[in-house]
Amino acid sequence: MNTKTTANALRIGVLGASGYTGAELLRLLALHPGSEIRMLSAERRAGQSLAAVFPHLAGLKLPDLIKLDDADYGALDLVFCCLPHGTTQEVIARLPRHLKIIDLSADFRLSDPASYATWYGHEHRALELQREAVYGLTELKREAVIKARLVANPGCYPTSAQLPLVPLIEANAIETDRIIIDAKSGVSGAGREAKEGSLFAEVSEGIHAYGIASHRHAPEIEQGLSEASGRPILVNFTPHLMPMNRGILSSIYVRLKGGASADDLRATLAKRYEGEPFVRVLHRGAAPATRHVRGSNLCLIGVFADRLPGHAIVLSAIDNLVKGASGQAIQNMNAMAGRPETTGLEQIALFP
Amino acid sequence: MNTKTTANALRIGVLGASGYTGAELLRLLALHPGSEIRMLSAERRAGQSLAAVFPHLAGLKLPDLIKLDDADYGALDLVFCCLPHGTTQEVIARLPRHLKIIDLSADFRLSDPASYATWYGHEHRALELQREAVYGLTELKREAVIKARLVANPGCYPTSAQLPLVPLIEANAIETDRIIIDAKSGVSGAGREAKEGSLFAEVSEGIHAYGIASHRHAPEIEQGLSEASGRPILVNFTPHLMPMNRGILSSIYVRLKGGASADDLRATLAKRYEGEPFVRVLHRGAAPATRHVRGSNLCLIGVFADRLPGHAIVLSAIDNLVKGASGQAIQNMNAMAGRPETTGLEQIALFP
Amino acid sequence: MNTKTTANALRIGVLGASGYTGAELLRLLALHPGSEIRMLSAERRAGQSLAAVFPHLAGLKLPDLIKLDDADYGALDLVFCCLPHGTTQEVIARLPRHLKIIDLSADFRLSDPASYATWYGHEHRALELQREAVYGLTELKREAVIKARLVANPGCYPTSAQLPLVPLIEANAIETDRIIIDAKSGVSGAGREAKEGSLFAEVSEGIHAYGIASHRHAPEIEQGLSEASGRPILVNFTPHLMPMNRGILSSIYVRLKGGASADDLRATLAKRYEGEPFVRVLHRGAAPATRHVRGSNLCLIGVFADRLPGHAIVLSAIDNLVKGASGQAIQNMNAMAGRPETTGLEQIALFP
Amino acid sequence: MNTKTTANALRIGVLGASGYTGAELLRLLALHPGSEIRMLSAERRAGQSLAAVFPHLAGLKLPDLIKLDDADYGALDLVFCCLPHGTTQEVIARLPRHLKIIDLSADFRLSDPASYATWYGHEHRALELQREAVYGLTELKREAVIKARLVANPGCYPTSAQLPLVPLIEANAIETDRIIIDAKSGVSGAGREAKEGSLFAEVSEGIHAYGIASHRHAPEIEQGLSEASGRPILVNFTPHLMPMNRGILSSIYVRLKGGASADDLRATLAKRYEGEPFVRVLHRGAAPATRHVRGSNLCLIGVFADRLPGHAIVLSAIDNLVKGASGQAIQNMNAMAGRPETTGLEQIALFP
Repeated sequence: MNTKTTANALRIGVLGASGYTGAELLRLLALHPGSEIRMLSAERRAGQSLAAVFPHLAGLKLPDLIKLDDADYGALDLVFCCLPHGTTQEVIARLPRHLKIIDLSADFRLSDPASYATWYGHEHRALELQREAVYGLTELKREAVIKARLVANPGCYPTSAQLPLVPLIEANAIETDRIIIDAKSGVSGAGREAKEGSLFAEVSEGIHAYGIASHRHAPEIEQGLSEASGRPILVNFTPHLMPMNRGILSSIYVRLKGGASADDLRATLAKRYEGEPFVRVLHRGAAPATRHVRGSNLCLIGVFADRLPGHAIVLSAIDNLVKGASGQAIQNMNAMAGRPETTGLEQIALFP
Repeated sequence: MNTKTTANALRIGVLGASGYTGAELLRLLALHPGSEIRMLSAERRAGQSLAAVFPHLAGLKLPDLIKLDDADYGALDLVFCCLPHGTTQEVIARLPRHLKIIDLSADFRLSDPASYATWYGHEHRALELQREAVYGLTELKREAVIKARLVANPGCYPTSAQLPLVPLIEANAIETDRIIIDAKSGVSGAGREAKEGSLFAEVSEGIHAYGIASHRHAPEIEQGLSEASGRPILVNFTPHLMPMNRGILSSIYVRLKGGASADDLRATLAKRYEGEPFVRVLHRGAAPATRHVRGSNLCLIGVFADRLPGHAIVLSAIDNLVKGASGQAIQNMNAMAGRPETTGLEQIALFP
Repeated sequence: MNTKTTANALRIGVLGASGYTGAELLRLLALHPGSEIRMLSAERRAGQSLAAVFPHLAGLKLPDLIKLDDADYGALDLVFCCLPHGTTQEVIARLPRHLKIIDLSADFRLSDPASYATWYGHEHRALELQREAVYGLTELKREAVIKARLVANPGCYPTSAQLPLVPLIEANAIETDRIIIDAKSGVSGAGREAKEGSLFAEVSEGIHAYGIASHRHAPEIEQGLSEASGRPILVNFTPHLMPMNRGILSSIYVRLKGGASADDLRATLAKRYEGEPFVRVLHRGAAPATRHVRGSNLCLIGVFADRLPGHAIVLSAIDNLVKGASGQAIQNMNAMAGRPETTGLEQIALFP
Repeated sequence: MNTKTTANALRIGVLGASGYTGAELLRLLALHPGSEIRMLSAERRAGQSLAAVFPHLAGLKLPDLIKLDDADYGALDLVFCCLPHGTTQEVIARLPRHLKIIDLSADFRLSDPASYATWYGHEHRALELQREAVYGLTELKREAVIKARLVANPGCYPTSAQLPLVPLIEANAIETDRIIIDAKSGVSGAGREAKEGSLFAEVSEGIHAYGIASHRHAPEIEQGLSEASGRPILVNFTPHLMPMNRGILSSIYVRLKGGASADDLRATLAKRYEGEPFVRVLHRGAAPATRHVRGSNLCLIGVFADRLPGHAIVLSAIDNLVKGASGQAIQNMNAMAGRPETTGLEQIALFP
C-alpha cells in the first residue's frame, strides 16, 4: 500500500518509536512522498516488529525496532527524537553532527538554562546544544527553522496558546499582565505509559484540572509571549484532562488594549496567518471544535467579544498529536529540507 | 423494591416527567422515605407507563403518564415542574394555590422582568408569580426557601458558579469587575430533545465552547453575584460541551482584593459551608473532579493560588442533573417540608 | 451524611479496599442500615485515608487503611475479601473461624481442584476451605448461602451467563452442546491496575475480543451449567472489551429443545425469577441495555426468537461491579445475616 | 491545500452530501488524484456552503450545496448517491444514462424483488435498474464492478460479514445451517438524523442489541452467502449499538465441516485475499480491533479455534464509514474507472 517514490528521499530515523508521537509520525510519513523510514528504536521493545507494538501500522514496510546503541546513523539524514524528557539531551549530544534532528521532547524548548533547571529539577546536560536549538513553532519561527540543525518541537499546549497570542502581543492589541489560558486536552497527551491516572475508568465520564499553576508548559508559553512582548510575561495556564483521545482546546481570556475590539483581534490574526496552510482564523461567530481538526495538522482560531467591556475571548483548537507534536515535526522537517510545508500533511480531519 | 413507608407522606406530582430532570427526580425520590409520587404528566407520552419512556425506572411502582389537563391537583401537596422554558409560567399560573411548587425551568429565576424579557425574548406572562418566587439555591437562600410556596430551582451552571463565588463576594475578598467562569458541562444538560448537536457522533471525542457571551445562564449568575455585592456585576461566562453524560466543572479565575491569599479564600469558603452536608471545600492542593460527584448532590470546591500575583483559581464540580437540577429540587422540597435536607439524597457518587 | 443506626450492626472488614470492587462495596454499604465498617486493608496504601485513594468516598466516616498483619479480627463479624487471585486462598486460610467470609476473588469458585490447577497454573493451597466454600450466585444457591461461612462470590461474566442459562437447562428447554455466549464488558472489570491495555487511549472508540477460548470465566460458567444439566457442558464464551466504565451484556445463542419456543424460554425464566427483587425478565420485544442497570444490583433478561428455526437469543445485562461483584456480595451478606436481601441495594440505576 | 492535478479527472457529483457518508466521501476524495468534485446536493441545506454543514471540510474548494433539480448532469461523469433508502430508486431512475452511479443506499442491494418488498415494505419502483445493478463488494465482485454502470454499494454490516464468510462457504469449509453473526457497531452507522436513540446521553456508557432477528441487513447477508453456497442460507444476525463513533466488529460463530480446523479456515481466507490491499488476515492468536482500522479502508480478519469441538470463531473489523460505505464506494469507482483500487485510499488508520 505504501507506494511512495523514494529516489532522493530523506532517510529518516525515529528514536523512541513505541510511543504515541512516534506512531503518529509513522502514520503521517506513510503518505509523505519524499521520505523513507530507515531506523526505528525502542529500548524495551527492541527486536520486535512495529506491528507488534502498533497493529494499526502493520501494513507499512518498516524496519524492526532496535536499541539505540545498534543504530547506524551514517545511513540517516534526519532523526525524530521521541524519547522521554531528561534522557533526550544526552542521547542527542552523542549524535553525529551530519544529522538533522527534530526533538519532540521538552529538553531543548526552554532557552534559559536557569528556567530549565527550575522546572525540570536538574542542570541541563547539553548546554551547547541548547544554545543551538531552534524553537520549532513553524509559522512563527520559519526562517530559523529552515536553517536549523536541531529543532526543539514545541509542546502541545504551548502550540495552541502561542499561535493565537503571539501575533496579538506583537500587534500590541492586548494587555499582557493578565492572560488566562484555560486548556482542555485529550488523554493521548499523557503518553502511552501505564499510569493509574490515564486508565479508561479513571478518565471516562469526567473532567478535572491538573498541574494547576505548576505545569511545565507554563514557562514554555511565557517564553514565547515574553519574546513577542520584549518584557517578561507571566500567564495563568490551567490544563484540564478530558475524556477524549485527541485534541486541545485553549480558551484564552484577554483584556483589549487601546480601544481594540474583538473584531480587531480577529483581523490581526487573519492577516498574520493569511496564506498559512495550517492556521485558519474562523469568521465572526464561529467557535473552533477539536473534532474538526482530529488527525489533521490544522489550528483553528476563533475570536469573540466578551460580556466584560474591553475584553475578548480567543479560542484555539488543535490535534495534540499532530499540530501539537508529530504533524508540526514533519512540517519542520519539510521546511528544513526545502519541501513544501504541506507535504504529507494534506489529510483532512476525521469526523465523526 | 420500593418499600417506603408512606404514612403522612408528601403527595407529589411531576409535570413533564419524560425528560432527564424528571427521570432524575424519580430516581432520587425512590429512596426518599417521606414522599409518594401520585401524578406524572407528559403531553406526548400520555397513556404510556414511565417504564416505556425510562426503562431504568421500570422497578418503581409509579402512576402512568397523563396529560396536564387530566391532573387532579387536589390529591397533591407539591409539584415539581420540569416543563420547557416559556410554557412553564402559564401552567404554573393556573395551578391551585394550595400546591407548593418547585420549578426546574428558567421561568422564575430572573427577578427583574426587563432582564427576563431581554434574555428570553418576550414579556413575562406571570409577573405576579415572578415576584413571589424564591430563588432556590438552598445553601444561600435557606430561610426564604423554607417559607416559599414557589421555588425557582437554579440553573446547573449558575449553581456551580454561585456556590463558590457568592461567599467570596460577600466577604469582599475578590474584585468583582473581571470574574471569568470557564465552565464545562456533560451533554445531559442539553436535555432529551433530539437535536443534531446532541448526537453521540457530534459530541464524542471532542470539545467546543458554545453560547459564548450570550448564554442565558450569564444573567442568572450575575443576578446572584450582584445581589451579594450590592452593585451590578457582569461576568465572563463561557460554557463548553464535553463528551460525558453528567457533570459540570467551573474553572473560575478571580483577582484577590486587599491582600487576600488563595488560602484566605479557601478558609472563607470552608467557614461559610461548615456543617453543610452537600458543599465540600477541599484541602489545599486538591482539585475537584466531576467523576467524584456523579449521581450525588455534592458540590466540591477547590482553591488554588495562581501564577499571576494577586490572583486565584476557584474550581467547583457538581452533577448537573443532581445538585444542578433534581437533587437541589429535592433538597428544597425537604427544606419546605421541614425535613432534614439530606433526606433521600444520601447516595454516594458512582465511581468509576 | 452517614447517619445509619448501628446498634447490633454487623461489624465488617474489607481486605483489599483500594480496588474498584472494594470501593463499590463501601459505596453500597454506606446506605446499608445494619452494618458498620470497622477495618479496611490495603498493603501498599496502608496508613492513608480511604479518601486519598477514592475521593468520591471522602464523605464517609471510615477507618484508615491498614496492613493485613495489623488487623484485629476479633472485632469483626464478617470480611469481604477483595484481594488478587492466587494470594487470597492463603490469606483466608489464616483467618479465625468465627469470621464469615465473602471472597470476591476467583480462588474458591471452582470446586474441582484439577480444574483449578489447570486454569490457574498451580495446585490449590487451601483445599479444605475450597470444599467448604459455597458458590454465591444468590438466586440459584440461596439455601446454601444462608448457611455458609465462606462464600465464593461469582465472577461478573459467569453471573451474567448463568442467571439466564441455568433455569433453561434445568427445564430441559435448550440443547447443551452448542451454547454460544458473546459477552461485552466495561473496562472496570479489568480492575484498577495500571496496564497499557486499560488506558483510555487504548480502549476508547473501539472494541475487540480478548481471551478467546481461553478466559478463566469459561470453566466457571461451565461448572454451573454442568451442575444444572447433570452432564459436562462446554460452552463458547467470547468476551469483548467495550469503551464504557461499567456493564456486561451477554448475548447468548441457543438451540431450542423438544419444540420449545422463545416464548417458552421467557415464560420459564419469568416463572423461575418471580418474586426475585434483582432479576427482571423483560416482556416480549424488549432488549436489555447495560445503561438501565448502571449502579444497580439488577440483572435484566430478554428473550427473542431467532431467524434460525429452532433457535433463540437470550440477552442479559448487569453492572459488573454490582450484581457482577460487590452488590451480589452484599446480597449474600444479607442472606447470611438473615436480613432482607435487598437491604442496602435499593438504589435505582443511574441513567443517563 | 487541495493541490490535486485535475487533467482528465473524473467529474463527480455527490447526491445527498449532508450526511456522514457524503462527508466521508469528500474527506477521502480530497486526497484522490484523479477526481474532481463538481456537484453537491442536499435538499434542505441547498444554498449553503459545505463548510457550514461540515466545518471539518472547510479547507476544501468545493461547490456549494444545490437542490437535485438544479443539477447539471451533463457536466458529470459519475455520481455517488447518498440519499435515504426508498427515495433513491426514483432519483436514480431519472438520471441520464451516460452517468456511472454508485449508490450507497440499500435500494439496489437486494436482487430479488420479492425480498425487497418484504423487507422494505413496498414494491420496488425501478425494477429495470435493479436488474442492472451490480452488488459492489469489490473483492468478491470485481469483474462485474469493473463493467458496471450502476453499483449497489454494500451495507456496512454485510461487508463485515460477507468478506470472511463467503470464501469459507465457497471452500465448503463450514456448515451453513447455523451461522451466528454477533455484530457491534459505532453510532455513525445510524446517520446524522436527529433521533433520541442516537443522542450522546442515550448511547454513551452502555450497549444494547437492536433489530434482533429483524434487521434489514440480514437478507443482504443471506443473499451473498446463499449465492456462495448455491442453496438458501438463513443466518442469525444480531447487531449491537456501541458507544463509539466508528467501527464494526463482527464476531462470527461457525461449525466446521469435514474435519476442517480453525487453521484451515485461516489458510483459506489468507489464500483468497492474498494480494488484496484492503483485506488482511491476521496471524494465529491475533484478534482484530476496530481501533486499528479507524478511518482506513481495511478489513481485518482473525480466526480462532473454539472451545466447542468442531467449531471456530471468525472475527472481522472494519470502519463502517470507510470499507463499510464511502471507502468501498471509492474503491468501486476506481475499479470502474480503470484506476488502481487503492487510489485515494492509502490513509493509515488513526490511532489512538
